[in-house]
Amino acid sequence: MPTEDQMRAAMAEYINAFNRVDLEGILALYADDATVEDPVGTPIKLGAETLREFYTVALESGAQLALSAPIRTSRGNEAAMAFDISLTLESGPCVIRAIDVMTFNEAGQFTSMRAFWGPSDMVAA
Amino acid sequence: MPTEDQMRAAMAEYINAFNRVDLEGILALYADDATVEDPVGTPIKLGAETLREFYTVALESGAQLALSAPIRTSRGNEAAMAFDISLTLESGPCVIRAIDVMTFNEAGQFTSMRAFWGPSDMVAA
Repeated sequence: MPTEDQMRAAMAEYINAFNRVDLEGILALYADDATVEDPVGTPIKLGAETLREFYTVALESGAQLALSAPIRTSRGNEAAMAFDISLTLESGPCVIRAIDVMTFNEAGQFTSMRAFWGPSDMVAA
Repeated sequence: MPTEDQMRAAMAEYINAFNRVDLEGILALYADDATVEDPVGTPIKLGAETLREFYTVALESGAQLALSAPIRTSRGNEAAMAFDISLTLESGPCVIRAIDVMTFNEAGQFTSMRAFWGPSDMVAA
């Protein structure tokens, strides 16, 4: 099982890689057979090619991520973090308030990501 | 499916009921067959009597809860919130940094709660 430090470091690197628009850096954090549910309640994305397409579009948005509070771990192979996603839409600047929950494999890679945010978590900034 | 507003209100009331040491108020937020995994990675607690025992002990700790950031919902029947748990141990005052993820039934009651926090999320305050 990954250590708390390993999980926390991978979550922090996810934020950092996103903010430096590092597609390969983000994808390297994921296991090959990882799934993404973003937002929770929408169809699950599965596999390397699908994740590459998803994050290519996400990075093209110009969004920047900032932790809202310290990353939380667990007694298991899961961790969670609250953060704000700042981006500019046609309607102007906005923030999406999200919480991501990741599960990890033995190597400390993400095997799943679930992003909690609903329509009302997107607010004008 | 519960609305975002219903889920957000129930999560907020959970914090408020805890802080006013209202055991019945907390338990009323849960469905009869609800499960609690606190912290994630430990055995799951199931059923009304077990939850009553769990929250009786939790309230006896004198802990107070405060949101770290606004509650997040989803496109499904789940929501998440980051908060700090302040309490005083024999070693002195401390804070447990947690994220709770709740799932909801049609009536807007919690059907499950999972609390993300690891040993390193408990820090001296």
